[in-house]
Amino acid sequence: MLELEERIRRNGIVEGGEVLKVDSFLNHQIDVTLLEAMGREWARLFAGEGVNKILTIEASGIGIACIAAQVFEVPVVFAKKSRTKNIAGDVYKVEVPSFTHGGVSEVIVSKRFLLPTDRLLLIDDFLANGAALEGLIDLAAQAGAAVIGAGIAIEKGFQPGGERIRAKGVRVESLARIKSMEAGKIEFF
Amino acid sequence: MLELEERIRRNGIVEGGEVLKVDSFLNHQIDVTLLEAMGREWARLFAGEGVNKILTIEASGIGIACIAAQVFEVPVVFAKKSRTKNIAGDVYKVEVPSFTHGGVSEVIVSKRFLLPTDRLLLIDDFLANGAALEGLIDLAAQAGAAVIGAGIAIEKGFQPGGERIRAKGVRVESLARIKSMEAGKIEFF
Repeated sequence: MLELEERIRRNGIVEGGEVLKVDSFLNHQIDVTLLEAMGREWARLFAGEGVNKILTIEASGIGIACIAAQVFEVPVVFAKKSRTKNIAGDVYKVEVPSFTHGGVSEVIVSKRFLLPTDRLLLIDDFLANGAALEGLIDLAAQAGAAVIGAGIAIEKGFQPGGERIRAKGVRVESLARIKSMEAGKIEFF
Repeated sequence: MLELEERIRRNGIVEGGEVLKVDSFLNHQIDVTLLEAMGREWARLFAGEGVNKILTIEASGIGIACIAAQVFEVPVVFAKKSRTKNIAGDVYKVEVPSFTHGGVSEVIVSKRFLLPTDRLLLIDDFLANGAALEGLIDLAAQAGAAVIGAGIAIEKGFQPGGERIRAKGVRVESLARIKSMEAGKIEFF
């Protein structure tokens, strides 16, 4: 998606070779007009697939998912990073390693909000090693819900997550797919 | 706002006298159509005030803020709950006690995204003891930004946060203001 690629070139900041900061428009400050364009693009790509719910993970995915959900006219469910190990109630759970913060987060969704009849679109801001997205796929599987595909804003194509998840048969639509960020210069596929 | 009050009566679950669960439409599963109506209502209430940015706090505030921001045609900034104590870079910080999870969260915003020229609308899903909202007001003050007001989805009017924050001169517009939840029966002001 050219608009997102141009925005990344203009406002993205490459740090230390593998970190891409997009916090001025995507995951700290948020340009909702850009998010609307992204939502429309995923709606075009997944048209006719009968998506009835969007599943994302807190925190950066939530805004992107909500605005996409307006275009799809479906509800959003966001998986929560549990801060206590003693969550009460009936939840699906998965452990997701965090590369940003280190350690492992327990990620949960209430069983009431993921159903075997669901046709889910998974949404997230980044796809790199794929841990968060695999966590969402696992939660969907626990519920017996169908995963129609994943809508990713930015895929780091030089990291293995996208390839591994596509190899499982999951359709992944990344709106900007980065080939390399060497010497601070961002190249897209 | 009648639509939100009716939704709370219909789908809200009172637990243990003081907990109101609205996770089927507001802060776990999200009804984006309801969020659109809420955004329009805050836009009506704060019309002509020159709001140029919405400030919220992760995670539940983000979806509400993003959809409101579409109506206001402004960007969102969300304050982050720091998971590491050694955040790098130039941030405003405040400590916010968490009544849901216990303990204290360090909440941060990059200095690049809060400016002395900003006219902020603060958005959050709940106002009860007021800790999160006071944290946002503190972050705005550190930046020298003006706080035009706070848009709250649900205020627990029987807890002291709303009164304390209004006493500071901050305009608080809560779309549903609960007077009592005794015996599971929800009464609004």
